[in-house]
Amino acid sequence: MLRPPPLLLLLTRCSAAARRFLSASRQGQGQGRAVGSVLKTPKGTRDHPPAQAALRERLLGTVVACFKRHGAAAIDTPVLELRETLMGKYGDNAKLIYELQDQGGELLALRYDLTVPFARYLAMNKITNIKRYHVAKVYRRDNPATTRGRYREFYQCDFDIAGQFDPMLPDAECLRIVYEILSDLQLGDFLIKVNDRRILNGVLAVCGIPESKFITTCSTIDKLDKVPWEDVKNEMVGEKGLSPEAADRIGEYVQLHGGLDLIEQLLQDPKLSQNKLAKEGLGDMKLLFEYLTLFGITGKISFDLSLARGLDYYTGVIYEAVLLQQQNDHVEDPVSIGSVAGGGRYDGLVGMFDPKGRKVPCVGVSIGIERIFSILEQRVEASEEKIRTTETQVLVASAQKKLLEERLKLISELWDAGIKAEILYKKNPKLLNQLQYCEETGIPLVAIVGEQELKDGVVKLRDVATREEVNIRRENLIEEIRMRTSQL
Amino acid sequence: MLRPPPLLLLLTRCSAAARRFLSASRQGQGQGRAVGSVLKTPKGTRDHPPAQAALRERLLGTVVACFKRHGAAAIDTPVLELRETLMGKYGDNAKLIYELQDQGGELLALRYDLTVPFARYLAMNKITNIKRYHVAKVYRRDNPATTRGRYREFYQCDFDIAGQFDPMLPDAECLRIVYEILSDLQLGDFLIKVNDRRILNGVLAVCGIPESKFITTCSTIDKLDKVPWEDVKNEMVGEKGLSPEAADRIGEYVQLHGGLDLIEQLLQDPKLSQNKLAKEGLGDMKLLFEYLTLFGITGKISFDLSLARGLDYYTGVIYEAVLLQQQNDHVEDPVSIGSVAGGGRYDGLVGMFDPKGRKVPCVGVSIGIERIFSILEQRVEASEEKIRTTETQVLVASAQKKLLEERLKLISELWDAGIKAEILYKKNPKLLNQLQYCEETGIPLVAIVGEQELKDGVVKLRDVATREEVNIRRENLIEEIRMRTSQL
Repeated sequence: MLRPPPLLLLLTRCSAAARRFLSASRQGQGQGRAVGSVLKTPKGTRDHPPAQAALRERLLGTVVACFKRHGAAAIDTPVLELRETLMGKYGDNAKLIYELQDQGGELLALRYDLTVPFARYLAMNKITNIKRYHVAKVYRRDNPATTRGRYREFYQCDFDIAGQFDPMLPDAECLRIVYEILSDLQLGDFLIKVNDRRILNGVLAVCGIPESKFITTCSTIDKLDKVPWEDVKNEMVGEKGLSPEAADRIGEYVQLHGGLDLIEQLLQDPKLSQNKLAKEGLGDMKLLFEYLTLFGITGKISFDLSLARGLDYYTGVIYEAVLLQQQNDHVEDPVSIGSVAGGGRYDGLVGMFDPKGRKVPCVGVSIGIERIFSILEQRVEASEEKIRTTETQVLVASAQKKLLEERLKLISELWDAGIKAEILYKKNPKLLNQLQYCEETGIPLVAIVGEQELKDGVVKLRDVATREEVNIRRENLIEEIRMRTSQL
Repeated sequence: MLRPPPLLLLLTRCSAAARRFLSASRQGQGQGRAVGSVLKTPKGTRDHPPAQAALRERLLGTVVACFKRHGAAAIDTPVLELRETLMGKYGDNAKLIYELQDQGGELLALRYDLTVPFARYLAMNKITNIKRYHVAKVYRRDNPATTRGRYREFYQCDFDIAGQFDPMLPDAECLRIVYEILSDLQLGDFLIKVNDRRILNGVLAVCGIPESKFITTCSTIDKLDKVPWEDVKNEMVGEKGLSPEAADRIGEYVQLHGGLDLIEQLLQDPKLSQNKLAKEGLGDMKLLFEYLTLFGITGKISFDLSLARGLDYYTGVIYEAVLLQQQNDHVEDPVSIGSVAGGGRYDGLVGMFDPKGRKVPCVGVSIGIERIFSILEQRVEASEEKIRTTETQVLVASAQKKLLEERLKLISELWDAGIKAEILYKKNPKLLNQLQYCEETGIPLVAIVGEQELKDGVVKLRDVATREEVNIRRENLIEEIRMRTSQL
């Protein structure tokens, strides 16, 4: 692929100190270092110091570039929503919603995700057709494992397509987007599992499960990626009250995974092919796989009947991407990071907000940016790589005293020309200190003014890496800096 | 200046419908259009539909580009802070802080600005030296005039320099940044007023005002930019309990504004030159003006003794930028927009968080992005300009039926190459509908596949604006699209 350079190539070598800093700030989440209890961020939240903020900016940049490549527009909604907007949308998880104190006026809460505000936005503005992305923070009063990249305040990166279209075309594009983002980020091998709520419901129906037990049975099925079938069966029988025979019948289906062959096989299945919902779902799944073949991405896709996903609002295709075992020997402590993207079709959510219940079919995907971020963070720590936190192209320096005026004049010219430039905030800084500052912060060039250079109408331009110095005529300086830093 | 193209040049022609939409969404803040009361955003907040989100992205892009040009690193801090972190920092305004409900655990609040969290971050991590920017939302339970671009949830764009440096060098750079941003945004003529808290305190001291009345007197002085001196004097005497003579003495000073001449004059002032604080402030002001002269920006700077600024934490130089009367005849209803940037030196705030009271001198500037945004919004509405909400370079289309497969194959190739491309989500879309979609959304190119083109190994590339069509060999298509859209 000829897309923007991969993220990790943008990193350069890193000092041990910088790595320690990154590491300390990751472990010390929510705590000051050696001071009283007051000096901390709230539980489950963290500051992002410059190295982390820069890494995150690049990561989000890659994700947003993909969303834009697919023609999405940005929208923004408030962090605050009316409590009633959020209530009744998250089932048991409603207890995790942060509520604001009643200080008079409306009762407010912090958004729990970006999907419900998106549905509220569509209904409120009677929008029936939009392709949008939204990158923003959401809030959950969870007890998250911060070491695994889970927080109470975290970013979500959502892409959704709303509107009535020909079947599976937007759904296929969402899967293509997951594929592109995970490829662009070079996180290692991955697999995108795909299923359909209608197929799952059909399976349960033909296995004789009453509809009242569909949801609870699904949540047990969903564990098949972590525990063996025997444990799942035991839970179905012991906790969910299914008969062993019914559980076995389910087991025959949900342990299946594959591609077009499996879809064809199930379309011929004597029981399943009699179920209207399952047949619809399988027909659409077949169409989806045809489109994914044309998109050239079926190698990373698995039709997996055990995928159920938690949220109630899905009505059709669902999917989830997982990273496969890292082959990267940089990483000393490989952690289980599980799902890094997920989504599906939710055709009923907007209708919940519309006063007349008008539906707007939607399909979308959410990129699990925090987990991906913690993987990248770990890689940086484990490697000799350093993330530059600034983009400064040149430091304006002097070798002798009493040249502050000349430095200020020169840097002004550079800023006027759009060059990213800094000076040390000292009247008479030592040249050594100025060069050291460049080494520490990764500034590639130094423009040195001195008595002789001023007389000669030149500036000495030093390459920090090679230590080569060359006199450049003042009128050519800007062009020279641009040329030398254009490939950085 | 040779910097990135100015914001408004990026705008293209706009349909009446799009303008009505922008307009409606601006006026309808916090409200759905014709539905029940539940379908709204919280009071004082608003959604940003795509056109606004795109405008804001460009505006923030210009501001952040300037911060980066000056070597700033990004940091991020949580939207939530411990209540005790915010308490005692905002004086009377503490009542405007949003508090979270006590749901067990820590007592939390939403941040009120970015400066206090920055100081908390510095003290918590014992950072004594950093140049950082932070662009993020803050929250105030105010009763804002949303029509004037004031909201309860709004963006702040802050740039701050923390550390012990030679006097006035970081301060001068902050003013240069305000100058660059307001120039780059082409908002019209502007003026940056500068004063120093020490000079103001010195003036009050030599006029015989007791220290206990400094703050309240300053808040009266601050009104001099809106009301005549007589009204200010009346408030001083009537409400603040100053003698008419003392008020007159103050009046002789605070009505002064000028440049280096005025500084020199005040340095010779028999009374003021005897006051230690005032003398220090005037000495620094002189140095500041020398640096601003070297930066070439004194034409937009006014040393103005009436500038006081509200916040308690300023300790030295303070400044505020105001837009001058718009000459732009596009704008039908010019609104008073007042201050669009402000800041100053606050050397004591970090020490309030440090357990040992260690001080970290800081100076910074905050760009009033919401007011600037509402000015730009108004200009877009008043003009025929339209903001493109997507960046799609090419629509992959077909002129005949049964070419969905070919469209999907071609768009896959384009995405692989990093081209921003869309298709209509229909199996057999009409060519007219595909062309209309390009017109509506501003897509400049259409790549048309047809039976004949497939046989000939070409794609018909259509320029939407000129309607010219030319056959491009398939292997040259990506290069051709890149070339044609590189200057967009």
